[in-house]
Amino acid sequence: MTGFIVRNPSFREDIARSFARQGALLFIGAELDEVDVGRCVLRLPIGERVLQQQGFVHGGMVGLIGDVAGGYAAMSLFDPGCDILTVEYKINFLAPAGGDALVAEGRVLRSGRKLTVTTAEVRTVGSGRDRVCAVLQQTCTPS
Amino acid sequence: MTGFIVRNPSFREDIARSFARQGALLFIGAELDEVDVGRCVLRLPIGERVLQQQGFVHGGMVGLIGDVAGGYAAMSLFDPGCDILTVEYKINFLAPAGGDALVAEGRVLRSGRKLTVTTAEVRTVGSGRDRVCAVLQQTCTPS
Amino acid sequence: MTGFIVRNPSFREDIARSFARQGALLFIGAELDEVDVGRCVLRLPIGERVLQQQGFVHGGMVGLIGDVAGGYAAMSLFDPGCDILTVEYKINFLAPAGGDALVAEGRVLRSGRKLTVTTAEVRTVGSGRDRVCAVLQQTCTPS
Amino acid sequence: MTGFIVRNPSFREDIARSFARQGALLFIGAELDEVDVGRCVLRLPIGERVLQQQGFVHGGMVGLIGDVAGGYAAMSLFDPGCDILTVEYKINFLAPAGGDALVAEGRVLRSGRKLTVTTAEVRTVGSGRDRVCAVLQQTCTPS
Repeated sequence: MTGFIVRNPSFREDIARSFARQGALLFIGAELDEVDVGRCVLRLPIGERVLQQQGFVHGGMVGLIGDVAGGYAAMSLFDPGCDILTVEYKINFLAPAGGDALVAEGRVLRSGRKLTVTTAEVRTVGSGRDRVCAVLQQTCTPS
Repeated sequence: MTGFIVRNPSFREDIARSFARQGALLFIGAELDEVDVGRCVLRLPIGERVLQQQGFVHGGMVGLIGDVAGGYAAMSLFDPGCDILTVEYKINFLAPAGGDALVAEGRVLRSGRKLTVTTAEVRTVGSGRDRVCAVLQQTCTPS
Repeated sequence: MTGFIVRNPSFREDIARSFARQGALLFIGAELDEVDVGRCVLRLPIGERVLQQQGFVHGGMVGLIGDVAGGYAAMSLFDPGCDILTVEYKINFLAPAGGDALVAEGRVLRSGRKLTVTTAEVRTVGSGRDRVCAVLQQTCTPS
Repeated sequence: MTGFIVRNPSFREDIARSFARQGALLFIGAELDEVDVGRCVLRLPIGERVLQQQGFVHGGMVGLIGDVAGGYAAMSLFDPGCDILTVEYKINFLAPAGGDALVAEGRVLRSGRKLTVTTAEVRTVGSGRDRVCAVLQQTCTPS
């Protein structure tokens, strides 16, 4: 993560405030665990409201928390007052998303004025055999 | 859609049953609108529980309904008794996802024993200027 | 394609000139077939120089011509003097890429000042059973 | 890379043989640098035949070597006699691909009987400021 320039000294507060205003994240029960320079970690306790038909977390929900983790990692390097917009993302599923919770960690690969590229990993917690269950690549832009 | 072979005569019932068992879809209020050979349409009425910080539907929720529409389009061509597993998907966002509801339509591009490739389009409804707000490409497999 | 605004009246000449300066395209023998508003068609005659180990066109070469078709479709809507930069693309392979030639058609899905989203389809020609062998989604930006 | 099971004791020879039969790779001058368990490194000396209009390596060529590096990383874990088929890949471009050569390193994230997921990184060499210029996520299958 070396070499990243922080342009918004209050990025942690701004990200926490943005997070708290997202109905979708409150609804599914996602929690903001860590925000750092070019990095963000979310936690999603697993409950009925995020499950698919086989009792695992729905892939779309896994994508959602990966998207958010990558997006806030990007936003930590934005100018003050900039909000975050996802341009696109791609997710590969590696294993069933079970256990007590999922942890999504987003990291910035390249930060630019116009475009930021991130990667995110989603891991299972408390599943008996914890592992990475999904990986994402994402493009974001300030808005 | 010509040329698709239906292997499961009760694919409509099986998909409806699978849909009804997905906690995530019930909780966000998604509705199964149409299921056809190699095609599936979902509807997501827009409410606080799917919004992001600017009042539009969260991109991850848009991804979720696109993923489901593509997945059930794929499942319509599976053998009886086969469930659906998403291998990966990729989504591009084209416009803010506002209005009264989103409609996601998935279509099969290629159906194989091992792998099915789909595309999905998500459109806004009742936004004053309805349009496609996201497109997806997806790979599924029977499980 | 309705509704696209042409900002560069000589987009056809500019795209032809840009194409002619791409060593990679000349070396693999790609040909610029059609350039229209928000649309571009390329042709790749199949020869040893684009094949993989089983005698089909290498997936990476299929990706390359899809990327170019999408990129020039985007560039047709750019301001005069703007070159094209691919931000990212994603390709799904649907069938082996055999026959006499491949034809790649790119189309703009959304054109913006900052970002353009395209889709591209690659079809086989002269394979005895012509069909779409790959689909792409791509993001471009003017540079 | 721990935990990967090698099923084909002569995977190195088989991959080298497969590589040598790919017209596209010989034509662009790609070289197989390293093959290991779940890992593969390629080198592409930069010349006119892989360039785009601005004098950098064409993004499609960057995608091609990333695809190959990921694919052979996957093949190192296949059963004897299995060839490799790319299901899909996605590439994000991080920086212009200039310098003397590109080095693509593919690594397996998840290896399964049916599907293997890899990631690949492409770096510049001899550009004065070497760095990662592209990242890929890929799905492969034995054929």
